[in-house]
Amino acid sequence: MVPLAPPVLSSKLPRVGTTIFTVMSKLATDLNALNLSQGFPNFPTDPALLDLVTKAMRAGHNQYAPMPGVPLLREAIARKTIDCYGVSYHPDTEVTVTTGATEGLYAAITTVVQPLDEVVVFEPAYDSYVPAIELAGGVPVYVTLTPANNYAIDWAVVREKITDRTRLVIINTPHNPTGRVWTRDDLDTLAGLIRDRDIFVVSDEVYEHILFDGRTHHSLMTHPVLQERTFVIGSFGKTFHTTGWKIGYCLAPKELTAEFRKVHQFVTFSVSTPMQYALAEYLQQPERYQSLPSFYEQKRDLFLAAIAPSRFTFIPTEGTFFQNVSYASITDEPDYDLAIRLTHEIGVASIPTSVFYEPNAARPKNDYKMLRFCFAKDDDTLLQAAERLCKL
Amino acid sequence: MVPLAPPVLSSKLPRVGTTIFTVMSKLATDLNALNLSQGFPNFPTDPALLDLVTKAMRAGHNQYAPMPGVPLLREAIARKTIDCYGVSYHPDTEVTVTTGATEGLYAAITTVVQPLDEVVVFEPAYDSYVPAIELAGGVPVYVTLTPANNYAIDWAVVREKITDRTRLVIINTPHNPTGRVWTRDDLDTLAGLIRDRDIFVVSDEVYEHILFDGRTHHSLMTHPVLQERTFVIGSFGKTFHTTGWKIGYCLAPKELTAEFRKVHQFVTFSVSTPMQYALAEYLQQPERYQSLPSFYEQKRDLFLAAIAPSRFTFIPTEGTFFQNVSYASITDEPDYDLAIRLTHEIGVASIPTSVFYEPNAARPKNDYKMLRFCFAKDDDTLLQAAERLCKL
Repeated sequence: MVPLAPPVLSSKLPRVGTTIFTVMSKLATDLNALNLSQGFPNFPTDPALLDLVTKAMRAGHNQYAPMPGVPLLREAIARKTIDCYGVSYHPDTEVTVTTGATEGLYAAITTVVQPLDEVVVFEPAYDSYVPAIELAGGVPVYVTLTPANNYAIDWAVVREKITDRTRLVIINTPHNPTGRVWTRDDLDTLAGLIRDRDIFVVSDEVYEHILFDGRTHHSLMTHPVLQERTFVIGSFGKTFHTTGWKIGYCLAPKELTAEFRKVHQFVTFSVSTPMQYALAEYLQQPERYQSLPSFYEQKRDLFLAAIAPSRFTFIPTEGTFFQNVSYASITDEPDYDLAIRLTHEIGVASIPTSVFYEPNAARPKNDYKMLRFCFAKDDDTLLQAAERLCKL
Repeated sequence: MVPLAPPVLSSKLPRVGTTIFTVMSKLATDLNALNLSQGFPNFPTDPALLDLVTKAMRAGHNQYAPMPGVPLLREAIARKTIDCYGVSYHPDTEVTVTTGATEGLYAAITTVVQPLDEVVVFEPAYDSYVPAIELAGGVPVYVTLTPANNYAIDWAVVREKITDRTRLVIINTPHNPTGRVWTRDDLDTLAGLIRDRDIFVVSDEVYEHILFDGRTHHSLMTHPVLQERTFVIGSFGKTFHTTGWKIGYCLAPKELTAEFRKVHQFVTFSVSTPMQYALAEYLQQPERYQSLPSFYEQKRDLFLAAIAPSRFTFIPTEGTFFQNVSYASITDEPDYDLAIRLTHEIGVASIPTSVFYEPNAARPKNDYKMLRFCFAKDDDTLLQAAERLCKL
């Protein structure tokens, strides 16, 4: 037989390359740089939590968990949700454990979005939202937030973008990468815009326990009009310093959860059993997540005090473990180039914030001359990084 | 404001209910029945493997793994693949660690299938294939295998079903639920049918190490025409008795892997870090998977000898840890009803095989009067179950 060429696969995501997080973390490793790029802690996980995983494995919890999650963990999540927000989700029918928040977001978007549905996305945006929309055949519609007014939402623009084809709005509070925290007014305004339409909400709240200066996390579940149409996505990775365990969850009213689980069960079916048992037990002590705001506020303040003498300018971040800084008074290089150069030259890796914006014909890079630094690092790393940044 | 009804979510998977595995495992638990339904072992995982997880956690491997998987594990998988099949996949560009085989299957199907693409599925089929096809907008096209000729493939039918719209063929060998093992002739015939077309293959090979009577697993990667167009999906859950850890992998040529990873990175991004380190080390001793055929053959033979005196009839399964048995000489109840009744009345849970067939207008339940029993259970459980089955 004559050899034939193998078939050609046309890409479902032609615009997707390697994520910036992979690029920067690899570069940081290769160059032995201080890695303030990807959002993960470089300090140890609580040994008590690790011991609970070992205990669960030895107790034989190594086979398939129930598809919606281990009941003990669903109950613990429901209890935590009442404690934190006073909102009740039934563990049997309204709480689903997911393979990290990423799978929760993916499954929720896939559950709602049909071909040609429009989805309102606030950019800058975490990089998984848009590919999930596109894989479902949906159309992202962008509302752009800029550092000019500290990422405030222009509600007149949001109103314009909501049409009869809008099916979903994606929210993220506290917001990665800007650190912005949604206010109660934001929730009221959004509710007013969508309450008489068939529009759902996916709310990415993985930084729910990381906000500063006495701010309150206004979960979308606390607003009744929003609650009944919202998939709230949470994660233990950010809260318990275990980003590599990939345990998250989705809270949604019964009817929405029923459809969510149909998708979830065929995307990953179930989630790591021993980790679920361990987290269920670990959650019994609420101070384990209640202490998080002050833990990270100390880190934010340490880092900001240390870069205060530098030529970078910034507004202290309201939440998340990210600080955006402007380098406009230092150089006018594109942010991507600068992030790469700083990793090479001073050994500090960061994330260029332009990657969180959709490329735009009018302003090709949406480059606001901002870098994002992750301060979920031990104090020494933060101080060393700041010292190097001060020399620029 | 007048209260409004919440928006109505139209289902993306209207025909999907709770999977039979969830139904039967829950019923078995509620009734304290012997659970030979869902495919998971009821015996302990090797403590040495559990200790490796503890070691990995204590070494600090608790943050995000690289998106394609921990390099050590990808290298171990590549080495195992060469050892078992003599086929080389590059760990950097052709091996991807997935959240169990389910996510691997989902991501591979989503990578290939565009709206209205046809996908050839051999039924009975594992229940995740068709929903994944439908979520991608594809159209499943069924080739039906029946117990009448011990599930042999009628290649004339396959030839008819392959059209210009066919984009993907889904293979599963050894095959769940029938235990059928593909032969080298099957591979040649399939290759002949698709070699001059733009057709890809997803090959679910999670039972690659569980086949009997000296049979060889003919991985699709061993056929050059198929290898260049196939996503081979494997899993450690079946091989190392850890179905609840959700660690699988996808092997595919570089160009296919590049597209696969674009989907994978937005479906779950990465996979449990400590489990990956543990498996990488555990795989250093090949006898740990080489011993699997004889381990399960002993269980199959034990179970079959024990049910030989019963009124069930069967052909010994060729592979997997499932045995299908015919109950035609006992009753003509529908298989679903019988499976439920046996769980209640004799405390033995099984899976009705009709659930693996698409409902068909001509033969509404595709009910061949067969039940599927999982023999990945300790010997006592198997003997007790057989004793009860013999009383029917």
